[in-house]
Parts: sequence; C-alpha cells; structure tokens
Amino acid sequence: MIKFLKRIFIGKPLKTNEEGNQSLSKIKALAMLSSDALSSVAYGTEMITTALAAGSALALWMQLPIAALVLLLLAAITFSYVMIIHAYPSGGGAYIVAKTNWGNGAGLVAGGSLLVDYMLTVAVSVAAAANAITSAFPQLHSWSLAIAIFLVLALMIMNLRGLRESANFLMVPVYLFVISMIGMLLFGIWRVATGQYTPEEVATVTESAKNTGIILFLKAFSSGSSSLTGVEAISNAVPNFKEPKAKNASKTLLIMSLILAILFAGVTFLSYAYQINPLTSDNTVLSRIASITFGGDSSIGFYVIQFATAAILAVAANTGFSAFPMLSYAMANDKYMPHLFKDKGDRLGFSNGIAALSIGAIILLLIFKGEVEHLIPLYAVGVFVPFTLSQSGMIIHWYRERGSMWIGKSIINFVGAFISAFLVVTLFALHFTTVLPYLIIMPLIILFFVRVKKHYVSIANQLRVNPQQIKDMRKDYDGAMTIVLLGSVTKVTVSAVDYAKSISNDVIGMHVSFDTNKAKEEETQREFERYFPDIRYVDIHSSYRDVIAPTSEFISAMAGKAKKRNMSLTVLIPQFVPKHWYQNVLHNQTAYRLRRVFVKSEDITISSYYYQLEE
Amino acid sequence: MIKFLKRIFIGKPLKTNEEGNQSLSKIKALAMLSSDALSSVAYGTEMITTALAAGSALALWMQLPIAALVLLLLAAITFSYVMIIHAYPSGGGAYIVAKTNWGNGAGLVAGGSLLVDYMLTVAVSVAAAANAITSAFPQLHSWSLAIAIFLVLALMIMNLRGLRESANFLMVPVYLFVISMIGMLLFGIWRVATGQYTPEEVATVTESAKNTGIILFLKAFSSGSSSLTGVEAISNAVPNFKEPKAKNASKTLLIMSLILAILFAGVTFLSYAYQINPLTSDNTVLSRIASITFGGDSSIGFYVIQFATAAILAVAANTGFSAFPMLSYAMANDKYMPHLFKDKGDRLGFSNGIAALSIGAIILLLIFKGEVEHLIPLYAVGVFVPFTLSQSGMIIHWYRERGSMWIGKSIINFVGAFISAFLVVTLFALHFTTVLPYLIIMPLIILFFVRVKKHYVSIANQLRVNPQQIKDMRKDYDGAMTIVLLGSVTKVTVSAVDYAKSISNDVIGMHVSFDTNKAKEEETQREFERYFPDIRYVDIHSSYRDVIAPTSEFISAMAGKAKKRNMSLTVLIPQFVPKHWYQNVLHNQTAYRLRRVFVKSEDITISSYYYQLEE
Repeated sequence: MIKFLKRIFIGKPLKTNEEGNQSLSKIKALAMLSSDALSSVAYGTEMITTALAAGSALALWMQLPIAALVLLLLAAITFSYVMIIHAYPSGGGAYIVAKTNWGNGAGLVAGGSLLVDYMLTVAVSVAAAANAITSAFPQLHSWSLAIAIFLVLALMIMNLRGLRESANFLMVPVYLFVISMIGMLLFGIWRVATGQYTPEEVATVTESAKNTGIILFLKAFSSGSSSLTGVEAISNAVPNFKEPKAKNASKTLLIMSLILAILFAGVTFLSYAYQINPLTSDNTVLSRIASITFGGDSSIGFYVIQFATAAILAVAANTGFSAFPMLSYAMANDKYMPHLFKDKGDRLGFSNGIAALSIGAIILLLIFKGEVEHLIPLYAVGVFVPFTLSQSGMIIHWYRERGSMWIGKSIINFVGAFISAFLVVTLFALHFTTVLPYLIIMPLIILFFVRVKKHYVSIANQLRVNPQQIKDMRKDYDGAMTIVLLGSVTKVTVSAVDYAKSISNDVIGMHVSFDTNKAKEEETQREFERYFPDIRYVDIHSSYRDVIAPTSEFISAMAGKAKKRNMSLTVLIPQFVPKHWYQNVLHNQTAYRLRRVFVKSEDITISSYYYQLEE
Repeated sequence: MIKFLKRIFIGKPLKTNEEGNQSLSKIKALAMLSSDALSSVAYGTEMITTALAAGSALALWMQLPIAALVLLLLAAITFSYVMIIHAYPSGGGAYIVAKTNWGNGAGLVAGGSLLVDYMLTVAVSVAAAANAITSAFPQLHSWSLAIAIFLVLALMIMNLRGLRESANFLMVPVYLFVISMIGMLLFGIWRVATGQYTPEEVATVTESAKNTGIILFLKAFSSGSSSLTGVEAISNAVPNFKEPKAKNASKTLLIMSLILAILFAGVTFLSYAYQINPLTSDNTVLSRIASITFGGDSSIGFYVIQFATAAILAVAANTGFSAFPMLSYAMANDKYMPHLFKDKGDRLGFSNGIAALSIGAIILLLIFKGEVEHLIPLYAVGVFVPFTLSQSGMIIHWYRERGSMWIGKSIINFVGAFISAFLVVTLFALHFTTVLPYLIIMPLIILFFVRVKKHYVSIANQLRVNPQQIKDMRKDYDGAMTIVLLGSVTKVTVSAVDYAKSISNDVIGMHVSFDTNKAKEEETQREFERYFPDIRYVDIHSSYRDVIAPTSEFISAMAGKAKKRNMSLTVLIPQFVPKHWYQNVLHNQTAYRLRRVFVKSEDITISSYYYQLEE
C-alpha cells in the first residue's frame, strides 16, 4: 500500500548507474536553480524604496546609487562564484571554500548558516506565494498557512521524483517571468523615452525630512542587498550539471546574474522614472509599474505580470530544495552531519535531505504562523556571513596558488568580501534584535556538527579491526547455551525449543510465575516436561507482576556460568506473528520490552523465534 | 530517568499479595465512588426548572411532581443495584447482569455504552470544573481547555498511585460538599418555615404559555433524570471493598442514594419555595439559593457553598476513573477487550484502563474544544440503555432462581426498567439529532468487541498443543545453518562470526555490494577471508542501492536448501549498540528494517548480535 503510493508520487526506482541521465542541461539548470534569485526582482526595488520613503520621500532619488551598488556587489559575487566553481567543481560552495582555505571552523559557520538559510528561504518563499494566492482569492485567506504547507509538500514530492522532472516543471514559471518582465521593461523604457506614459495620481507628500543621510542610505542598501540571496545556489549544485560540469555551471551562473542585473536595473529605473512612492498605495511597486506601463489595472499585460510574479514566488523555494540536500551531503561526507544525508533515494536524489528541509520549513511556518517576512534580516545575515567567508577564503586560495592574474582575481574577491562583511556589520547595527537569534543558533548548530563528527570518529576507532587486538578478542567457543523464555506451552514454545536444540548443546526453559494461580503454573511445568523430558525447566517467582526484572537477573547469572564454561549464550524469545500487523496491539509486548533490556547486556545474543499465524 | 519520575508520581511498586491493603472502607469508598452522583445536585434542579421555564414560567410548579418521579426512579435504581451487588459480587455491574441474563449481545451493548459514557463523564465533569474555576478567575478564561486537560492528567496520576491514596484525597471535597449542603438546606427550610427569608427581586414575567402539558413535563423529567448517572458506579467496583465486599458495597450504595435523595429533594424544595426562575439571572440556581438562604452574595455561607460546589465538580470525574478500569477488566477477561486492560500496574490499579480513559477524555475535550455540555443527552442515553438492560435482566434472574420474595424483587426491577426504557424513548424523541451518534457509535464498538474476541479465540486455537498434531510438527534437526549479514569487516563482524560458529555447523557470510567502489568491495572480501578462511563469503550485487530486496531473495533461497538438508536457519544481524540511545539516529537503521522483513518469513529465526560500544 505504502509502496504503491510511493510509486505514484515518486515514480519507479532508478538504477545507480542511470545517474548520468538525471544531469541537467544549462537551460533546465537555470530553471531549477535561479528561481530564488530571480524572484527577488519582485520585491528588491520595493524594499529599497520603502526604506527610503520611510525616511523621506525626498530621498527616493537615492534608489539609483543604491541600485548601482547592489549591481556592483552582484558582479563581485558572480565572478567570485564563477571562480569558485572552477576551483571547487565538486560542489559544496561556501562550505567547501571556507573549510579548505580558512579551516574547519569557518567551514562549519558557512555550512551551518546556509543550511538554516535554506530552510528560511523555503519558509519565506512559500509564505509569500501563499500571500500572493490569497490576495487573488480573498475567500482563501484563512487557509493561507495550509496553502504554504501544501506548497512545501508539493515541492518535496517534486524533488523526490528527481532532478529532471522538477526542472521540466519549473521551466514554465521561470521563463514566463523572465520573458514577460523583459517585455514590460522594453515597452516601459520606450514609453518613458518617448514621453508616452501617464504616471498614477500621487497624493502630495508634504513632510520635513525625518531621517536622511548615511543611516538611511545604509538601511535601504542592506534591505536591497537581500535580493542577492540565492546567487550561491549554483555553486552548490555543480555535480548535477551535464559534462563539462564546471564550465556549464559557470555559464549558467553568468546568464542568471545577467538576467537578474537587467531585470533589477530595469525595474529600479522605471520605479524612479514613474516617481513611484511605495507608501502611497497598498499595491506592490512592481504591480504599479505594470499598471502604468500597460495602461491600467485591467490591461492584459498587467495580468500577465501579476500571474508570472505569483508563479515565480511559488517556485522560488525550489532553490533551497536543490541546494540543501547537496550541502548536507557534503557535510555528511565530512562526518559533520548524520550519514543518512548521504543515502540516495529511489530517484537518486538525497531523499533525507529533501525531507529534512521540508520538515524544517514546515516547523518554521507553524512556529511563526506563516508570518515569516520579519525573518528576512536574519536570513540576510545567514547569507552574507558565508559570502564573506567564501570570498575571503578565495583570496587565500589565490595567494596559495599564485597562478596567472592571481592579484586581479584577488581584487574581485576582495571587493565581494568587503561589501559582504560590511553588510553583515550593517545588518547587526540596524536590526540587532531581529538578528540576535543568529548568535544563539549558530553556536548550537556548530556544537551539533562537532559532536556528530566526534561520535563518528569514536565509533570508527572502536570498530576498527586491529590485528593484535583482534587476536585477543577472538573466541573459540566450546559450546552454545540457549535459554528459551516460556509463557505457557503452545505450538510456538514447542517449535522454539526444537529450534534451540538445533543450535546448542545446553537448552534451558525459563518460566516466570506469579502468585495468582499455582495449579496452572504446575500444570505448565508438567506439560513442558512431557514434551521435553531432557530439557531443564526453571521456574522463577515474581512478587511484582514484573517479568522483566527476574528474567534479567536469571540471565545475568547464566551469562556468568556460560562464560566460565567458554560457551556462547543465546536468549531465545518465542513470538507468534499475527496475520495483520495491527493485531499486535492485542498482544502484550513483553518480547519487545525484553529485547530492549538485553540490548545493553554484554555477551548475550538475543534471538526471536517467530511463529507465523495463518488466520 | 523515566523510572525516577514514575516513582515520584506513581509511588513505589506494591507486591501482588499486598492487594488486601488497598481495599476501601465504606467511608473512603463513598468519597471515591459517589462524587459523580452527588455532584449532579449542583445542576439537577436547574436542568428541570430551566426546561420548564423555557416553556412557561407558570409551569415551574411542575418541578415538585418531577422531583418526586426522579426520586422514585432513584429508589428503584438503588434497590435494583443493591440486589445486583448481592447477586453478582464480582463487579462488572450492568455488563455482567445483561450478559448473564439476556445474553452476550445485550452485555456488549451495556458494556460498550458504559465505557463510552465514562469517557463522556470525565470530559463533561472536568469541563464543568474548568468553567467553575474560570468563572472565579476570569483572567484564566482563555486557558480553560488547558485546565480541563490538566485536571484529567491530575486525576490519572492520582488513580495510578492507587485506590487508597486517591480516596484519602477525595474525602475532603466530597464530605465538605455534603456537610455544607445539608447545613444550607436545614437553615433554608427553617427560614422558609418561619417566613424569615427575602426572595430576590424578580423581573415580572408576563407571557402566554408557549408550551405546556405533557411534552414540557417529559422534557423537564428527561433533563432532570440525567442527575442519576453515576449511581451504577458502586456496582462495578464491588471487588475494591473491604470484606464482606457485597455487604459493604450495598450499604455504601444505600447511604449514597439517601444523601443524594435528601440533597436533591431539599434543593428542589427551596428552589420552589424561593420561586426561583432560572431564566432571570446568569447565576446558577444553587448559588441563588445559597445567596437567599445566607442573606446575600457576600456572606460566608455563600462562599463556602460556591467553593464546595466547584470542588466536587472537579473530582466528579473520578467516578469514571474507578469504574472504567474495572469494567474494561471484566470485558478483557471475556476477551472482548484487548488483554492489556487486564494488566495490573505497579500500584495494583489497572493502569492501561486508567490511561485509556484519560486519553479518550482528552480527545473528546480537544474535538469539542471543551464545550461538551451539549453531549449530555447522548450521555444520558448511554446510561439509561444499560440501566434498562440490567434491570430487566434482573427480572430474568429472579424468575430463574425463584427464591424468596422473587415477585416483590421483580416488581422493583420492573419499575426501574420501565422508567429507564421510557427515558431512553423520551430522549430519542426529544433530542434525536444529539442522540443520533449513539446509533452510529454503538454498532462500531460492538463490532470491535466481536472482532477482538474472534481474534483471541482464533489465536488460542492456532497455538493450542494438540498431541497428535504436535507429533507431526515436531522437528529433529540434523544441524544448524547461520547466515551472518556483513557490512564491512569490523570488531562487530568478527565477534558475530565467532558466535555464529558456536551455534551452527554451516556459517555463511553475506555481503551486499553496490556499483560505487569495486576496489573497496574486493578489499572487504579479502579481509574477511583472512580472518575466516573456512567460512563461505557470498557477495550479492544490488543495482538499486537497496540492501533489503537482494538480502531477502538470497535468504529465501537458502531457507529452501536448509529445509532440504533438515537444518534450522538463523539469520544473524551484527549490530553495535551506541552508549546513548539517541546516538542511534546517527546510524542507519538497516538492521531494524531487515528484521521487519524477516518477521514474516516461515522457518527463519532472526538473531541480533549486539556489540557494546564503550564511548
């Protein structure tokens, strides 16, 4: 049944060597990996102008220099990641770069930040998409959290189905958004150039400047820079590309950044040219640009832009689904994350990573009841800390290699690292309380990584076969002792004792009796001895209706005896298996509880004799 | 840790033969078992007068004949249960009586009704208590569901601690209520008799009679009769009394009914004498009686009555906690309920019954968000159906015995049975939609009982040792084959193979390899063969990264071979046990999944070789 549902939702398993077929062409990879970065065009300009207008409407001109600075940062980050892709083609992005160049600590900070950030990306994106949907259909408003969770689950299933199928699906919203946006920008710029547009009526703003100058500039810049999240995703996913992987990945990254730059510059230009003040209307800046460009809220162009925006927001979360499993795989390979993140599922994706990300995002949505927007500064810190570490790490990398043009490359990375670090400082200064959790969560996460690694290293050391030591611990038993735990004499008991006789030369039947029915206890013993006259029957008395403690005591004593006689000791628990699993609730779970106790006993092997019931 | 908490909350375990010490004296049993019945005085009269006043304020005189009828029903039920206690001193009440005299079907209807009803009792009572608490402290209002759940958990822990301790605790609220109520009634009657009271100012009611006559009378009577729930509880709990059990139990029942009759009659008398119309104020009828009797809302007497009422409502749920576990024990003894309801806990209570009741009540509270009052008609049907069955069953009982005065006894039971049946019909007629779920739930519950019984009977038949059959199924194996499942060669593997050699003369090491790292796979084989040159090593290849399917296939094939050679087959799964249980998440759970697969295989014994890690 579960298997059947799995087939329907996930598809039939793929062979390990079918992996190549799942690789991505550039055009699919762009759809798969760019939705997060590109969707930020839907709100990037708005965040800048809102921050400015909150200070003073007279400061709105600043959006032009700020946009220029954001584009500079984008360029620095893009070139930096292109270089990272070539230098570290096995994926892992900031984690690998920081680890290799700065050391493990920096790697863990970068990796931990990004893992948490991908969960935040997913939560923030689906919440935005749910808002877009409930704005269009207000009657769904009370379902918006449920819609967000549904979107997470839909993305999870899509990603469990495998890379290629989800890329196919994602191409529609991503390319629809890119094409319709470029169309709008060209049309809008042409109208501005020819003076053919009618700005919307704007409520006259009369105010004294509340807050201008450098603080306002920094606030607006740090808000706007959060549109750059998602740019690093491609560097994490290099192994998913078609050969030559590094080249294809870096080309895809360049194309993505170029599109992002064009869209962002164009939207900011029109926002400035149309003199849009974000505070004078509830509508988004992008929808107002579309309305002015296409001549009103009922034009076809306006609807296309609105629909494309909602669609790309809905799939923006997918970037997290591509990057999180790859990063957790890289960290699990280094033993900082549980091994289960290394397991590939039926469709060759890292299923556990996909599932963990979904669960994390759903928990975030539930905790914050879908209102995750104010987590954005936190999320920005979580992006720019790894950016800083990876870009500065690259400077070390170039210095170590000192290849051709290493100084030029270092300068690019320096610009990226400097602006990123500057942004981290700004975010802490301007949003201290929102960003504070970062300082609490990161040490805990890093402690977790370190503990996991320590555990794996310790286990490996304890299990490693050391030829000298192994000679001492090898055992050449002189025989085998088996204790069969008996309730009453049934077909299960009889079969189990027959089996016990086949594996050992010393079988003991052990029974626990209570104060309740002496005659029945004696009858059980007589019956057992009738069938097995040659087997020792031991009756242990319990005053507390407890089977576990007296059994455990007796077995410990026997373990000592077996050791003295150089025999192995098996504890055999006869159990019948009902035809249907749910029937198990009707039977007491003593066998299960006994097993849990003996798991911790040295030199005892626990064996279950299962007897199948047919009805 | 869990053990420690258990000791604190539940107390130290008691020996089975300490049971006698846990028995109840009459005075404690009254506290333990009467809270449900007595607490109904807090709302019984109010339910009658509210039903009447809703028809017409002029019909309020009818409360006197209705109260007389309720008292008649109480007398019939009481004498009937006294006779039941003597006739069936082993407890079980309506279930046993209906089963013995009418047959199994009637027993299941009675038992199923009461089991559901006890859950409803607990939910309704704690919700009422939570309302009483939040009326006193309005700032707690939004916590009222949490308070109700907390009360359920507190009662659960108290009952898990054992009978005597909970009886000690319950004596305070029950006797406080009885004494303060009797005080109030005596004082009130004296004031009425001497004309010394001042009725509260009543808004003049001018209305035409909306609804009078027989329908109104029936509505008010059926509402009032729900105060009689809880009377049957003592008959379920006879085994908990001190010797002579039946005599003590029936005396306790008579005392309880007498107190209930006095309180109910007194409250109704004062309600009539004071001319209280329940619709003219938000306060309860009982609090208005207290206010008039003691001369105002700030008198000490008023506060004492208010406090005592809240306290008895809070503990009324305890009747369910006494009766449900006993009834489910009786039904489990007859194999209609899962065996786990027969297990006695550390303190000799039926822990699983107590826990199941708590969970059921909490689920009801959560489903109905604490607003369980409108379930009362449903609950009343659930009481009067078993009343009808048990009382009519007693008539059959007397007829079969035909002892002294059997006709007189039969007449008492006939009156009880007739009024109960009449009430069931009335409830269906007047509250059809509320009562409808009873007709849906009961068939499902009875189906459950029947299926459980069928399952146990079938299992017992399948397990029973039949001398002829057993001769055919006995096996005298010629040897033992063991398959050791191998990952890599570690200390665990080496120890496990050494153990396998001690229990069998044919050991096979089985390894599953993937497409990923051929060199490593070969190295594993070489290493294994270095340590165990005499053991067969089998390498199974899997293309789907799946260990389970190929392992399962191989083992099935080997099972066939073992059978042919008349050998037993053991599958040995080597596992290491981390020092802390939570570390298990860091390791893959293949062993666990393998076990689940092989549980269903005939003729295979699954054995876990546990290797203890020390760090």
